Amino acid sequence: MSGRRGLLIVLSGPSGVGKGTVGQKLRERMPDLVYSVSVTSRPPRAGEVEGVNYFFRSREQFEEMIRQDAFLEWAEYVSNYYGTPKAFVFEKLAQGRDVLLEIEVQGARQVRRRYPDGVFIFLAPPTWEALVDRIQGRGTEDPAVISERLRQAEQEVREVDLYDYVVVNDDVDAAVERIRCIITAEHLRRARAFDEMRRRLTREVWR
Amino acid sequence: MSGRRGLLIVLSGPSGVGKGTVGQKLRERMPDLVYSVSVTSRPPRAGEVEGVNYFFRSREQFEEMIRQDAFLEWAEYVSNYYGTPKAFVFEKLAQGRDVLLEIEVQGARQVRRRYPDGVFIFLAPPTWEALVDRIQGRGTEDPAVISERLRQAEQEVREVDLYDYVVVNDDVDAAVERIRCIITAEHLRRARAFDEMRRRLTREVWR
Repeated sequence: MSGRRGLLIVLSGPSGVGKGTVGQKLRERMPDLVYSVSVTSRPPRAGEVEGVNYFFRSREQFEEMIRQDAFLEWAEYVSNYYGTPKAFVFEKLAQGRDVLLEIEVQGARQVRRRYPDGVFIFLAPPTWEALVDRIQGRGTEDPAVISERLRQAEQEVREVDLYDYVVVNDDVDAAVERIRCIITAEHLRRARAFDEMRRRLTREVWR
Repeated sequence: MSGRRGLLIVLSGPSGVGKGTVGQKLRERMPDLVYSVSVTSRPPRAGEVEGVNYFFRSREQFEEMIRQDAFLEWAEYVSNYYGTPKAFVFEKLAQGRDVLLEIEVQGARQVRRRYPDGVFIFLAPPTWEALVDRIQGRGTEDPAVISERLRQAEQEVREVDLYDYVVVNDDVDAAVERIRCIITAEHLRRARAFDEMRRRLTREVWR
């Protein structure tokens, strides 16, 4: 294991597909997976802990981080910034740890450009109707917001070409198991497992 | 599932690594996996059943099949022919079934040329010593035969570049589980899962 770089696992998909729920169960199932904590400029909500839920920074601090190219990806939603700090992720990968990013499609696109070796997993709804139900079921939003979200989700579904794998979230446990298999298989892919085997089996080691 | 082509899973690796044992447990664990029965020109041993262990053919019949390009791969060992019949494999793949080939490294090389879309898994020994033990432990062979097998295994280990995945056979159950994950993950890879998702989520289907 030592000396081997970890995998960057990017779990993304349309808003409302259930990334949070699947990501949380995946982390329970694979406790060694490092979860990347995002930076945000929005104020903490009750119960949210610095460094656990988010790193909370001012808009000015966030903008300074953007200038310093400190983000693997970032975006602004509803006047608040959200971003994935690069240093933490790269440090864990260099230590050989697998890192999980649960991010929006827009952010995944940025990560693909900056770190093409990542394992990009698109979480898809079982049907379009299921996604509509999820987006509407979130509750209090007015019809205009819901309609905008649906339009956005439709756009996001078209971005699937960017991804290495498609996992249908028809059942949370089944989706988690599929993602676990993807991570296992990616570790066994030739480019990654090859050096390890060479190391085990070269003549210098044999004799 | 319908309309989707199955996966050709090629399990290979140096002679003595345990392909047979791992392959058998994998088939028990994944009963839907179609096992490709080989054709051979060697006479049946006691208890061997036509169409289960092998398809038994005369040398002349085998050579006629070679001329008709009926094999995905074939080779001659100790004056007997062994080969994988193409028609059976392609028929099952077209039906959407996954097909498992347990074959020698030499045969895997031929399959890679003829069917590059296969999923090529190299079963590797945990250490070179473990492979030596296995080859020597097979028993009755004289030292010259053993020495020739070791030389061949050493050559075969170098062919790992041809494969998509490397699975170390340190424990049969663990190796089987890794291969199961590889097959699951390969079904979820974009190129394969993509059309399926498009079919589920295109507007024509939604509305």
